[in-house]
Amino acid sequence: MKKIVLLRHGESEWNLENRFTGWTDVDLTPKGIDEAHKAGELMKEKGFSFEIAYTSFLKRAVKTLNCALDKMNLDWIPVEKSWRLNEKHYGALQGLNKAETAKEYGEEQVMIWRRSFDVEPAPLSSGDPRNPRFDIRYKEVPDTELPTTESLKDAINRTMPYWECMIYPNLKTVDEILVVAHGNSLRGIVKHLKEISDEDIVNLNLPTGIPYVFEFDDTLQLVKDYFLGDPEEVKKLMDAVANQAKKK
Amino acid sequence: MKKIVLLRHGESEWNLENRFTGWTDVDLTPKGIDEAHKAGELMKEKGFSFEIAYTSFLKRAVKTLNCALDKMNLDWIPVEKSWRLNEKHYGALQGLNKAETAKEYGEEQVMIWRRSFDVEPAPLSSGDPRNPRFDIRYKEVPDTELPTTESLKDAINRTMPYWECMIYPNLKTVDEILVVAHGNSLRGIVKHLKEISDEDIVNLNLPTGIPYVFEFDDTLQLVKDYFLGDPEEVKKLMDAVANQAKKK
Repeated sequence: MKKIVLLRHGESEWNLENRFTGWTDVDLTPKGIDEAHKAGELMKEKGFSFEIAYTSFLKRAVKTLNCALDKMNLDWIPVEKSWRLNEKHYGALQGLNKAETAKEYGEEQVMIWRRSFDVEPAPLSSGDPRNPRFDIRYKEVPDTELPTTESLKDAINRTMPYWECMIYPNLKTVDEILVVAHGNSLRGIVKHLKEISDEDIVNLNLPTGIPYVFEFDDTLQLVKDYFLGDPEEVKKLMDAVANQAKKK
Repeated sequence: MKKIVLLRHGESEWNLENRFTGWTDVDLTPKGIDEAHKAGELMKEKGFSFEIAYTSFLKRAVKTLNCALDKMNLDWIPVEKSWRLNEKHYGALQGLNKAETAKEYGEEQVMIWRRSFDVEPAPLSSGDPRNPRFDIRYKEVPDTELPTTESLKDAINRTMPYWECMIYPNLKTVDEILVVAHGNSLRGIVKHLKEISDEDIVNLNLPTGIPYVFEFDDTLQLVKDYFLGDPEEVKKLMDAVANQAKKK
């Protein structure tokens, strides 16, 4: 059975501060590193042995991947990084505290920005220092493709070409692939694989640090999917993500 | 000015135990991780900004690279890994304590094995579980190229094609390259760049965790080379490596 495992990065400094992060390159917290190590230990214990891994251009995902691979003694496998696996770009909201934003704009508006399928937050201005066109890591990306804000739909639309052209076709030649990325870029992949509707995908809250396994048959059709780890624990973690906007 | 920086991995568990490591995939010690972090901080402070990095298939080098890149906020750059940058293969000596080996075979014999140019230790037998042909990470390497022991000359001979075909030509399109590897694979590169003789190269003892900078002009000719960091400290570290076989 061929397998692709999706892993959402562990807790970051701005998860902890409950701020909109998007493309801001914040670090993992010690808890986030611990989550990554545990995910690696669990995958090793369950017998996974990846031949290639993919991640985003953002530190919190790359480090989660490095920590997990290290625990699996797979430091040596090839790793491909792409901006297309980045988190959804949160535009002008990047850096704002989610609870503060809720207080100012109302919880409903924040929920729309965070969870609607096709409404994007206000964009960054072209002179805003947070604009990705000033960041050397995106210099190979054409300006027309570089977002200054994104709806979930936008984020999925720029993630999927990478999935379809780079990740998924690799299953023809390798048996096990690991993808470490972000809540919203991973939503895109899950939406596609499980044929989830635009309405329902916004209610899928992937837990951090929990490997999500997809198994494929020889014709590369999806056979089943499941989380690694205790189902009770997984449910608790998914609920916690859903409730973030309500936190003080 | 174009730059290539060579970095030898920090202290590993078997450096600490003073055992012949070679291709054994031992981890860094906490001190080794600290060395890697400090190397990254120093390179950041000195204004380095690498566009691509190369490392071996061995955990102690990959982790040193990951730690250094993280401190430079360069987690996102492409990283290429190759078995050709691995440490010299120490054959049947792998796992033995250097001081014990010195006691048994004499310090002179150990010095010959460690420091001669073209004498290799006894090879691993084809059934020895340490034989790299049993290790999945080398499955793409033809059996005829996979060593069971190596002299320094052998190690340099399999390192240099990677330098000449993959690393050095990249200077045409990028300005700064980082290579994190091992005492003997890096010796090969330094020997080539500085035209050091077979006799003299065995006396070059690269310090761990100290970035070694090579600057090239527009025609990619070497202009100068220097270590980053306090020269006194660098000398002390190089002497310490040279004296390892004498330790108890």
